[in-house]
Amino acid sequence: MRSQRFGDRYQLRFESGELVAESLLGWLKANEIGYATMTGLGAVSGATVSYWNAETHQYETHELREQLEVVSLIGNVTVKEGAPFTHIHVTLGRRDLSIVGGHFNDATVHPNLEIWLQRESETVERLLDESSGIFLMHLPEDG
Amino acid sequence: MRSQRFGDRYQLRFESGELVAESLLGWLKANEIGYATMTGLGAVSGATVSYWNAETHQYETHELREQLEVVSLIGNVTVKEGAPFTHIHVTLGRRDLSIVGGHFNDATVHPNLEIWLQRESETVERLLDESSGIFLMHLPEDG
Amino acid sequence: MRSQRFGDRYQLRFESGELVAESLLGWLKANEIGYATMTGLGAVSGATVSYWNAETHQYETHELREQLEVVSLIGNVTVKEGAPFTHIHVTLGRRDLSIVGGHFNDATVHPNLEIWLQRESETVERLLDESSGIFLMHLPEDG
Repeated sequence: MRSQRFGDRYQLRFESGELVAESLLGWLKANEIGYATMTGLGAVSGATVSYWNAETHQYETHELREQLEVVSLIGNVTVKEGAPFTHIHVTLGRRDLSIVGGHFNDATVHPNLEIWLQRESETVERLLDESSGIFLMHLPEDG
Repeated sequence: MRSQRFGDRYQLRFESGELVAESLLGWLKANEIGYATMTGLGAVSGATVSYWNAETHQYETHELREQLEVVSLIGNVTVKEGAPFTHIHVTLGRRDLSIVGGHFNDATVHPNLEIWLQRESETVERLLDESSGIFLMHLPEDG
Repeated sequence: MRSQRFGDRYQLRFESGELVAESLLGWLKANEIGYATMTGLGAVSGATVSYWNAETHQYETHELREQLEVVSLIGNVTVKEGAPFTHIHVTLGRRDLSIVGGHFNDATVHPNLEIWLQRESETVERLLDESSGIFLMHLPEDG
């Protein structure tokens, strides 16, 4: 993965064959990012994507083993249990232009994935919400 | 809804069961936002989404009553007839990873919706375009 | 096309009937933009969208001749061979709320397309990657 910094913004480019989750989390940790927003696009040779089942409170995970456009990538970075945590959703495009997508777990880049970030100097933490089993952003202000 | 401000940027988090449109418009009014851009992701237990019919010049509105991932949420805030106005489009993900979407009217959050905004100090107004029946951004510069 | 500048950010609005690629590239050149990120939404009466075939290393291009919501538009601006170059992906919404999408080539706006940009003062160049045939961002830092 390669990067360029512009003040509190960054452009990242993942290499072909790179696994996104490990590279991204390593970079976030090295750059001590406690809160950021992310946007991106590119293409992958495979991806793991999930749907949150509201009845079971579990993520149902699907492995997609095909060449897909990353048509949209939207996410944020927070801190969960002391480490950077990403929350990312993606739409993925097939050869016939049909689209699938959901909660992003990981992907293998091919040939190129471009993600840009806007960081803040503050940290936003996630705390467990017992009613959903989800870690939610801890934000200070009501309303 | 909870929020955190970072200068001219904000992170919002909607609570489970919250209706997005009313909460968001109330927050925009309270914060006197005259122009902002928005990005978000999350999940909802139902949503109202529209398609603009170019022949009738009417929005055709669909009620989706199911648990859906908000895979992308992209929008902006302007001022229409003296009040904050949101223009938002969403892609929504089903359990089989298929995607539907269009013009966002409203949704019921479940369990979590995260929207971030970048505001400007200026206001952008929308004015009626008689040929389409749509309120368009009034922007000063040609080309 | 009309625009408004807010420091290093811009709001653009394309007119009904306008071809996006030509207008956008002309505006980027006139404004001497060497790197920017873009987000947008709107609607079009037709679009040209592609899928990159990983076996042939060619883009397969589809002409969509119908009224479509631009449900997400995500992209960036760099410089390729001395001129502004856009890399944009879109999801497009049909009347039944189904979604298609991929790599954006061009579209005819109808009635409204709104794109906002965040520019940097730096330039990011694209250089040919011989193994994929794709021009990739030249970014300075490893990891």
